[in-house]
Amino acid sequence: MEHFELMKTLKVSGEGRIVLLLLDGLGGLPREQGGETELEAAHTPNLDALANDGVCGLHDPIAPGVTPGSGPSHLAVFGYDPLRYVIGRGVLESVGVDFPLGKEDVAARGNFCTLDEQGHITDRRAGRIATELNRDLCAMLRAIKLPGVEVFVETVKEHRFILVLRGKGLSGELSETDPQRLGVSPLPVEALAPEAKATAGLVNEFIQQAGAVLRDQHPANMMLLRGFAMWPEIPSMQEVFGLNPASIAVYPMYRGVARLVGMAPLETGPSISDEFDALVKHFKEHDFFYLHVKKTDSAGEDGDFDRKVALIEETDAQIPKLMALDPDVVIVTGDHSTPALLKAHSWHPVPVLIRSRHCGVDGAVRFSERACASGALGRFPAVDIMPMALANALRLGKYGA
Amino acid sequence: MEHFELMKTLKVSGEGRIVLLLLDGLGGLPREQGGETELEAAHTPNLDALANDGVCGLHDPIAPGVTPGSGPSHLAVFGYDPLRYVIGRGVLESVGVDFPLGKEDVAARGNFCTLDEQGHITDRRAGRIATELNRDLCAMLRAIKLPGVEVFVETVKEHRFILVLRGKGLSGELSETDPQRLGVSPLPVEALAPEAKATAGLVNEFIQQAGAVLRDQHPANMMLLRGFAMWPEIPSMQEVFGLNPASIAVYPMYRGVARLVGMAPLETGPSISDEFDALVKHFKEHDFFYLHVKKTDSAGEDGDFDRKVALIEETDAQIPKLMALDPDVVIVTGDHSTPALLKAHSWHPVPVLIRSRHCGVDGAVRFSERACASGALGRFPAVDIMPMALANALRLGKYGA
Repeated sequence: MEHFELMKTLKVSGEGRIVLLLLDGLGGLPREQGGETELEAAHTPNLDALANDGVCGLHDPIAPGVTPGSGPSHLAVFGYDPLRYVIGRGVLESVGVDFPLGKEDVAARGNFCTLDEQGHITDRRAGRIATELNRDLCAMLRAIKLPGVEVFVETVKEHRFILVLRGKGLSGELSETDPQRLGVSPLPVEALAPEAKATAGLVNEFIQQAGAVLRDQHPANMMLLRGFAMWPEIPSMQEVFGLNPASIAVYPMYRGVARLVGMAPLETGPSISDEFDALVKHFKEHDFFYLHVKKTDSAGEDGDFDRKVALIEETDAQIPKLMALDPDVVIVTGDHSTPALLKAHSWHPVPVLIRSRHCGVDGAVRFSERACASGALGRFPAVDIMPMALANALRLGKYGA
Repeated sequence: MEHFELMKTLKVSGEGRIVLLLLDGLGGLPREQGGETELEAAHTPNLDALANDGVCGLHDPIAPGVTPGSGPSHLAVFGYDPLRYVIGRGVLESVGVDFPLGKEDVAARGNFCTLDEQGHITDRRAGRIATELNRDLCAMLRAIKLPGVEVFVETVKEHRFILVLRGKGLSGELSETDPQRLGVSPLPVEALAPEAKATAGLVNEFIQQAGAVLRDQHPANMMLLRGFAMWPEIPSMQEVFGLNPASIAVYPMYRGVARLVGMAPLETGPSISDEFDALVKHFKEHDFFYLHVKKTDSAGEDGDFDRKVALIEETDAQIPKLMALDPDVVIVTGDHSTPALLKAHSWHPVPVLIRSRHCGVDGAVRFSERACASGALGRFPAVDIMPMALANALRLGKYGA
């Protein structure tokens, strides 16, 4: 039986409340060989207490050795096979600016670029123009009208924007206009499937009008489009797990990925403390909460070991607020590792703890990569987190008699 | 997405050099309950240092509980699903005697056997004749001519030889002539697929002529053929992982299996020390090295616990030579376990360590079955070794955005 079918069959209604505390890029590496990781260096009495009461392990977001992007790693932690459910780049960018993408919209990411007099690309990013100029250019592009569809153009940052077409019968099966090299002209869009022909025609019409609109806007005198995609066909967490889930995330992209699987976004202020306050405020309204701490990942990407340590400690200090709610199941993990040493996402398995009244026992007395390596959960695929969370909430029934 | 497709998509070019040190049959068992395994009994300061700096685990070559042959277990460690990529016995025997098998050749393993006057088999192995006699008989069989194909007959050992047909349009989809019991006649070869009819005809012609050639050579007055196979359709390590790999192995079969996946064989003398010298000599020429130590397995198969311990120690003493090369990634493991207690290959998961600048941390401070059991790599399928090796060499890109 397919894994999701099994979940759908076994899920039972229940009252058990689950909190998934996700520290983005949690996993780390020692600064120098033989030293401590960020998580090991951090003073985390509250997380250690959870590890001591709970069971620990390491999860592989995608597969051993594979470094994940944020989209697939989040889907995996939410229980969705990241090799099966793929979020197109246009969709990810759109949810990343809080654009209310509909199920029939086609989204693409756009780059403003520079063309020379022959129409050849001289800069694929138009010198990374200021975001303010981007806003003006997007306002100009919004004036473009296409027959039978609505056109949305929204600024992302610097040279990046999104284009969304809304209408009936659209398709995201389209080729990219970015030739990925200089000295050649942008490519026309081609339909990659018969049902995408009409959409390709509309996008090419947009491109032509955009060329006229931008002609005198040096250095951003043209734009390139790629990552065409539609909202993915993906069952909701309600459907698969029988949950009424909510997300608490400061950054739009994470609220967006959560929305893809059916989580209601909760309002929160920008600090980690604000996010835990939002959890307290809404705790009675949902039975699954995903609380996302972004800045641990940013510190890792900046190569700032000490800031990552401090952010882990700042999160640790919020744990009493969470535990005062008496949640039935607490999971603490990351979506992937972002070691300050590598200044990037990495392939390393991610520490995870599950704490509930019924979670079992192991020898892990603190929350760290090393302790989790010998925990009772072992090393396992991230998609197994959700079934274990449901089980610990007594919300999964028996398979077979 | 299929696993190999994922690797092909994610592989990035890089300079990172990987050394896979494989001690054949490495895993073991205590001589008596409560005692130490061969690896635990061995004094291995250098391997222990690697384990201390690295991360450890246990791999299952094929699947939990499954005892592997050398062919499939090597394929698995090289990253190839051993249940999907199957090397025919004729091919394995051929590469095992260093026969330069071509992609259009059909190979079979042969046994000299004894027939009585009625033409019934009385000994399927012809009394295990001396290898020298085998050589004479193979020379006689080589005189057989078949229309349109070249015929190769090569001694393996005692009663065993290989038959290879080389020509256009051949097929290995053939039944065996060995009825696997006494008192009956050898079977004719039958085509198991329509495209094998011509090849079946050629082999039956060979059998008939061989009967005439061998008629008076009692006890080896006939031969049996089985394991017909062609070079398997298998993508190279270049194609899948983007590597330029080489093998260092004393025994032809291991060079042969490595050649199947695209590894260039490097010349080496017969001792373990010679093999490490070959690594030193060629270290700049390739970015992946498989160094095979055979004798640990032979000692295990002989039930010689102490000799296996000594061979592990002999290998350990070579590690400084390896580390002086400053390889980016070192993997030490076995292809399977061969406990002296069992005098045979076994199903036990195999110790593995990965050591790189970015490998992560765990509590394993020495290299042994017990230490590996609580290492950060956990217990995992052997096919995951290569993706982790590539990741540690910074040669795998990110999945998704």
